[in-house]
Amino acid sequence: MQSWVDGQPADTLGLQSRGLAYGDGLFETIAVKAGRPSLFEYHLERLALGCQRLAITADLALIRDELSRYASVLGEGVLKLILTRGDSQRGYAPAVGVPPRRILQGNPPAAYPACNAEHGVRLFECRTRLAEQPLLAGLKHLNRLEQVLARSEWHDPDYAEGLMRDTAGRVVEGVYSNLFLVKDGVLLTADLSRCGVAGVMRAALMVEAARLGIDVRVGDLSLEDLARSDEVFLCNSVYGIWPVRACASMNWSPGPVTRKLQAIARTLLDA
Amino acid sequence: MQSWVDGQPADTLGLQSRGLAYGDGLFETIAVKAGRPSLFEYHLERLALGCQRLAITADLALIRDELSRYASVLGEGVLKLILTRGDSQRGYAPAVGVPPRRILQGNPPAAYPACNAEHGVRLFECRTRLAEQPLLAGLKHLNRLEQVLARSEWHDPDYAEGLMRDTAGRVVEGVYSNLFLVKDGVLLTADLSRCGVAGVMRAALMVEAARLGIDVRVGDLSLEDLARSDEVFLCNSVYGIWPVRACASMNWSPGPVTRKLQAIARTLLDA
Repeated sequence: MQSWVDGQPADTLGLQSRGLAYGDGLFETIAVKAGRPSLFEYHLERLALGCQRLAITADLALIRDELSRYASVLGEGVLKLILTRGDSQRGYAPAVGVPPRRILQGNPPAAYPACNAEHGVRLFECRTRLAEQPLLAGLKHLNRLEQVLARSEWHDPDYAEGLMRDTAGRVVEGVYSNLFLVKDGVLLTADLSRCGVAGVMRAALMVEAARLGIDVRVGDLSLEDLARSDEVFLCNSVYGIWPVRACASMNWSPGPVTRKLQAIARTLLDA
Repeated sequence: MQSWVDGQPADTLGLQSRGLAYGDGLFETIAVKAGRPSLFEYHLERLALGCQRLAITADLALIRDELSRYASVLGEGVLKLILTRGDSQRGYAPAVGVPPRRILQGNPPAAYPACNAEHGVRLFECRTRLAEQPLLAGLKHLNRLEQVLARSEWHDPDYAEGLMRDTAGRVVEGVYSNLFLVKDGVLLTADLSRCGVAGVMRAALMVEAARLGIDVRVGDLSLEDLARSDEVFLCNSVYGIWPVRACASMNWSPGPVTRKLQAIARTLLDA
């Protein structure tokens, strides 16, 4: 589908964009079903938080409206919003009073193999480590070279995702997914206050798990925690949940907690 | 001056640019004097190193030629090259066989107050810390949110630059400059293997200092090292050298080593 820039059909962006010059902005990748953005409130909430932390003064009501209208035209697929701090001349200092810029792009539904969700995926052990930067941790910002490097490490399609650790060795997330472990019925996920992207499906699943009475703990995870897990799964806002069946010499089977939450993730994406 | 994209006059870039989506690329900011790019070989060398480390397969001979031609038209000013990994659809995996994209932008000469170079500058102590990411350290890549956040911390024009430390507290660099200390006639500058941008003026000055018989040491610098320095100065490839006269409660006067290298920096920029 034709992209929109600031609400108008467009295929290009001016070269003065701070998004291009510095990766100075945020993005959201939103599943669209039956003309509606899935997990919409979660996406808007993360975007608002990102704007606040990067001091980007965006008109969030306008963005909400624009995303809704774009999704209704797209119908089925994946909507990507890029919100940049706008344009400026040379120099890191943000220009005063320059409005941020909204870029909306529509793609067809993601075509992942059905077996990823059914039988689970194998994780590549990425050598690229996530740097610890609390000021940017959790945000879905446009500085994504770590993910580009990590995703460049493997070409074998047998690996659907990669495992990313931080520079201190903690287990954090996938390259484009969040990671959950299940141990003795408790759901564990990495603390994302130093690095990582706080995915909206992760946020939604934490709420849903608590509703089901499943204990959710956020904290530091080690490779040993991963090895000792009863179940392991990945999630994101486009594909929902993929069980993890292998990583290096570790193996798991899709378990009951994963399957229960997977059904919920499907419902969330279809809602 | 009119920008060029892939050698053709253009004001815009396609929305599929990985430069915009992920900050997936590199840049160089090059002073142009009398139609020639200053410190040209240093810029090309750093760009080549960046391409190698990010696995961007660029035609460096073509880029050299294009920069020369653009500079000859620009005459006097600042030439900015952005080299992106090119375009791709959704997903971090770089597309195979997609050529990188070259964006050249020309600006008038930078208009910094003459007193910066004459009397020295005051440094703002940035709270934003540089994350330790050895895979990206030293490169002038497009992931520059740390610099944007740091430069956003002050508005008082009495501060010409900001002091950046890493998350462990080491003194590293300015927001858009490298930092040198002089202690007992020895030149000290930060090790940039964990974070920071290895500036081309820094590289050139290290070569020139060695030629003058000045001992140059690269290593970890602390606030105490800064406080105990006889002279402190900043450098970059556009303005040359600025003595630092103050940072927080610390004060220095422009000293003989700074002045000697400042004259050399001017020659390098005019060569």
